[in-house]
Amino acid sequence: MKKINVAVIGASGYTGLELIKLLQNHPNFTLSYIGTSEGGGKTSDLHPSLLHVVDIDVKKSNPKEIAKECELAFLALPHKTAMDFAKELLELGIRVIDLSADYRLSLENYEKYYGKHLDEKHLKDAVYGLPEINREKIKKASLVANPGCYPTASILALLPFKSFIKENTPIFIDAKSGVSGRGKKITYGEHFVHVNENFISYNALEHRHEPEIAEILNKNGIKNDIHFVPHLLPITRGMLINAYIQLKEPINAKNVLTKFYEHEKFVRIRDEAVSIKMTAGTNFCDIFAISKGGIAFVSSSIDNLLRGASAQALTNANLMFGFDEDLGVPKIAYVP
Amino acid sequence: MKKINVAVIGASGYTGLELIKLLQNHPNFTLSYIGTSEGGGKTSDLHPSLLHVVDIDVKKSNPKEIAKECELAFLALPHKTAMDFAKELLELGIRVIDLSADYRLSLENYEKYYGKHLDEKHLKDAVYGLPEINREKIKKASLVANPGCYPTASILALLPFKSFIKENTPIFIDAKSGVSGRGKKITYGEHFVHVNENFISYNALEHRHEPEIAEILNKNGIKNDIHFVPHLLPITRGMLINAYIQLKEPINAKNVLTKFYEHEKFVRIRDEAVSIKMTAGTNFCDIFAISKGGIAFVSSSIDNLLRGASAQALTNANLMFGFDEDLGVPKIAYVP
Amino acid sequence: MKKINVAVIGASGYTGLELIKLLQNHPNFTLSYIGTSEGGGKTSDLHPSLLHVVDIDVKKSNPKEIAKECELAFLALPHKTAMDFAKELLELGIRVIDLSADYRLSLENYEKYYGKHLDEKHLKDAVYGLPEINREKIKKASLVANPGCYPTASILALLPFKSFIKENTPIFIDAKSGVSGRGKKITYGEHFVHVNENFISYNALEHRHEPEIAEILNKNGIKNDIHFVPHLLPITRGMLINAYIQLKEPINAKNVLTKFYEHEKFVRIRDEAVSIKMTAGTNFCDIFAISKGGIAFVSSSIDNLLRGASAQALTNANLMFGFDEDLGVPKIAYVP
Amino acid sequence: MKKINVAVIGASGYTGLELIKLLQNHPNFTLSYIGTSEGGGKTSDLHPSLLHVVDIDVKKSNPKEIAKECELAFLALPHKTAMDFAKELLELGIRVIDLSADYRLSLENYEKYYGKHLDEKHLKDAVYGLPEINREKIKKASLVANPGCYPTASILALLPFKSFIKENTPIFIDAKSGVSGRGKKITYGEHFVHVNENFISYNALEHRHEPEIAEILNKNGIKNDIHFVPHLLPITRGMLINAYIQLKEPINAKNVLTKFYEHEKFVRIRDEAVSIKMTAGTNFCDIFAISKGGIAFVSSSIDNLLRGASAQALTNANLMFGFDEDLGVPKIAYVP
Repeated sequence: MKKINVAVIGASGYTGLELIKLLQNHPNFTLSYIGTSEGGGKTSDLHPSLLHVVDIDVKKSNPKEIAKECELAFLALPHKTAMDFAKELLELGIRVIDLSADYRLSLENYEKYYGKHLDEKHLKDAVYGLPEINREKIKKASLVANPGCYPTASILALLPFKSFIKENTPIFIDAKSGVSGRGKKITYGEHFVHVNENFISYNALEHRHEPEIAEILNKNGIKNDIHFVPHLLPITRGMLINAYIQLKEPINAKNVLTKFYEHEKFVRIRDEAVSIKMTAGTNFCDIFAISKGGIAFVSSSIDNLLRGASAQALTNANLMFGFDEDLGVPKIAYVP
Repeated sequence: MKKINVAVIGASGYTGLELIKLLQNHPNFTLSYIGTSEGGGKTSDLHPSLLHVVDIDVKKSNPKEIAKECELAFLALPHKTAMDFAKELLELGIRVIDLSADYRLSLENYEKYYGKHLDEKHLKDAVYGLPEINREKIKKASLVANPGCYPTASILALLPFKSFIKENTPIFIDAKSGVSGRGKKITYGEHFVHVNENFISYNALEHRHEPEIAEILNKNGIKNDIHFVPHLLPITRGMLINAYIQLKEPINAKNVLTKFYEHEKFVRIRDEAVSIKMTAGTNFCDIFAISKGGIAFVSSSIDNLLRGASAQALTNANLMFGFDEDLGVPKIAYVP
Repeated sequence: MKKINVAVIGASGYTGLELIKLLQNHPNFTLSYIGTSEGGGKTSDLHPSLLHVVDIDVKKSNPKEIAKECELAFLALPHKTAMDFAKELLELGIRVIDLSADYRLSLENYEKYYGKHLDEKHLKDAVYGLPEINREKIKKASLVANPGCYPTASILALLPFKSFIKENTPIFIDAKSGVSGRGKKITYGEHFVHVNENFISYNALEHRHEPEIAEILNKNGIKNDIHFVPHLLPITRGMLINAYIQLKEPINAKNVLTKFYEHEKFVRIRDEAVSIKMTAGTNFCDIFAISKGGIAFVSSSIDNLLRGASAQALTNANLMFGFDEDLGVPKIAYVP
Repeated sequence: MKKINVAVIGASGYTGLELIKLLQNHPNFTLSYIGTSEGGGKTSDLHPSLLHVVDIDVKKSNPKEIAKECELAFLALPHKTAMDFAKELLELGIRVIDLSADYRLSLENYEKYYGKHLDEKHLKDAVYGLPEINREKIKKASLVANPGCYPTASILALLPFKSFIKENTPIFIDAKSGVSGRGKKITYGEHFVHVNENFISYNALEHRHEPEIAEILNKNGIKNDIHFVPHLLPITRGMLINAYIQLKEPINAKNVLTKFYEHEKFVRIRDEAVSIKMTAGTNFCDIFAISKGGIAFVSSSIDNLLRGASAQALTNANLMFGFDEDLGVPKIAYVP
């Protein structure tokens, strides 16, 4: 079959790099356009690990040029910048998977947490790209809003318990991410000496992923208040979230999970505690749950850059173009 | 003044090592007896970092010999072994600080979680060695049960909120410890390849520190159910616990903390998130809290081997012998 | 085309795991037999990261059964055990790639460093599996002795300088490996607390890879004495070696490297210092060299489990069966 | 006795922090002045780990004010800035210990590697502050040039072999440092994601500590060429250097070391490989050596911030004021 040409816009960051790596190995997509805000040089200048592997030229991102050669663009751009590109690309007839937050929230929530939205028109039609809840919509979407990493792990952990969570009780999410989740920005917050042998929460109860989690859960039937506290782990890659919930009545938590996800390819239910290394390098979300009387503890692990960003984007691309959801999507963890 | 001779029994592990280091620098205690189950060699054979610093002989632990030269013994022994030594030492008139769990719980709870107790006589009189709640009792105690690390961090975080926590709501504690908390045992659970770049919960809702936390909180007026999930952090030293509570009414969480601990030397209230590196190397417990409507998030950080074991034992020793609580107790973190 | 059935014997360790992962993705080999000394359970019981990815049964390794279904066996076994299997498999007509040291050295050197050899017959015909020096021999070999990790990195770094190294001067190799190089054994030497925030040499001037490096270099024209000091890095995966050499006359070290390796697919010459993360996850050997007057510094980086073991074994398998050397061999590093 | 008032100028960096920590615990020095380029706030604003421990005001560094109250100033300033302060302080009659490179080298070497020197007058009288070679001169010095970290470890390792090293053979030093050695600057080179799970050389054969090592060794009788390659270890603190030397004749390397350092308090000769954790937190330099025929391998370990900077500065201060060299100087490693 003819391969589909695709573009990665915003190729200098970590999620851009992951997209390049995934697309390089994909049987049906051809990575034909790599763009950054500046352009120039080879891909291996941006990412020296790709020397002799991906040596194509890096362009200064230009929607019109992309429209000439590609059918799909992945946007690995900062919030706000993404919507400028998305709008123009969509109007040129290119399908878009946006890895930023620009199309994930309702207009109201977006403007409350991120500021003025400049593309309300497409916001209305954007599909939240979590295949487990929106698979059929994604297949037909022109614009997919790829979920945040914390929301992916949190929503997948909580959804199965929809009918078991006690009304009007708070849900607490204690979340931890590796440092790659902060991107390549350079502040003392990412300094090795600061992070190493340390563990720190940040934006407790005030992180912008909290409304994303709450809004999506709400749309899917979980109306409880969400209280979210993220932390920085002294590791490069991976994410683990714990949710603490109060139940209407005692349940067998593992059975609930197993039944809910029995047909899913990228969710694994674990008999024992999930761990970050079991999913790092893959698109899997591993989940473990245990309940005791009126409460339950649910814990999920994902690779923040893959299931939390670029590999999930690839499953969305597969769905949009009618391919198997798992085509070219990594399943083998880096372990050891 | 005449210095007090003390013994460290169980000197080969990490808490034993920390006791040796602390006592070596203490102005009023003389470390005159270092014992292990086997005896033999110099201290620097057990702990090569002490070469040319502490070179005294290691004895095969013998209560009668200890009684001849010491007034106080620190027991850094496994559960069960500790009570054999404690019993004999107490009957020989030696005061004891036990770092194991043997004298921390009620008889009922002990036998439920640890098995048969063999020294009920002294269990009755043992004082739980958390100075912030038992300072006056510690001063007069013959036997101090030094608290567990997770309980120390959890109880100090929760106590100030006693009158604000809503009745009959669960308290969730999401706790994380460095690997030194597992001691020197050698299983794949402590293997570098397993722990590094990883993060894993263990014994979720079933850890033996859960009843210790619940029992002490209960005695001090917090009757809510405690649900405790500990994790292993890929770091050597340090501990951070998060407690999620439901409130009777909105509060200013920081003010509650500040007022409660205004006279304490080893609790610091932080304006921002606590972190492990701020307390590693010290006896401080740093606490941060924030509330939002009907819930609060309280987070505390300690050095698991110092405030969570050996340095807290030293503050107890200071109190038992009438010295300033902070005499020779470390306050300067290892940072950077 | 018909796929080739292959076996992995010794599947419980790290190199066994890497072989399983590589073969699972290989287009022309089918992993049809996974054996351990005990057998039993599924592959994902041995390696939980493989749940829902590789779920085939683990057998108790049996050469006769292997001979029935496979054309090639990879031996990821301890030294000594390997030669028992190799011998029997070869006699049954199965081709063998042995990842142990059993067939790497001359009989004399083997018996000096490892003890009695029990398969002298096959030792004579074994081919040292470093494609850059033995490509044509590997294609025809029945038995390939897969090189050690340190020797792979060291030999590839030094070979290009054969005609430039001053006679009778010592070559010093300062080598560093991640902890996965020690395998899954469990001693205090692999304990997280011991390794983390640490850096230690071991077996200085006495490591068994020193004679392997010296023997292979000697056969290839470098007769100088080799002095080798390995270290343990506080990382999981990766290896970097530095060689310090004395020159006959000034050279342009980079040009020497570039010319020597211009036709090689798995050696990359770097303009700047090599680093472990650039090769971790791949079969590349990255090399950097700089000279100053009469000396040169040559530095190479490999993934100790891939180029240093399992992926190099796969390039050998490709050669043995007439496939492209890089078929199914990883080139994309795990970075970030 | 009356305590000596001292100042720390450049208190915001890591070596400044270490000086503050050391002086806070010193019996004979009083830390009465803490200065930064901006001034303002409390010490615990600069270094939050010092909350409730060192809460004195931070001043905008002013030599005249310092001169009014202090007898000694420690300069923890960047190269170039240091000499401006040193000059003025010396002229005001204050003794100075400079932790920068400004007074370590001959004028010729300084200007070759660092640029124009602006205080030749005092450069002539500065004493290189390595007590093991300059103890008596330090006692009388007004200006001590505190050695670099790599030079401290390298010189102490090599000096004992002065009469055994073969003439006209190169000495190779393969050196490794924790990230705190790079200070608090913020570039991608210190980013956690870049450093973690990595290992990289930098400035191979071109680092500015190479001439410092060579010049001091030369003055002390070792005339061989020095070839120096430093690396960044994925750890916070600590340094290990390996020196490879060629010998006139076989020696017992350990005996050479033991004899050379038999009267030194801060050098420990090890029977086994030195390691970073054995010295981290102390002023010790641990050394291990082994020889084989005509070569020897010498390895030393120090804490880069303590023996490599601030604690060595304190031993110099002790000597300058007639105190015991080890007064208040840390000897107990952070281990575990």
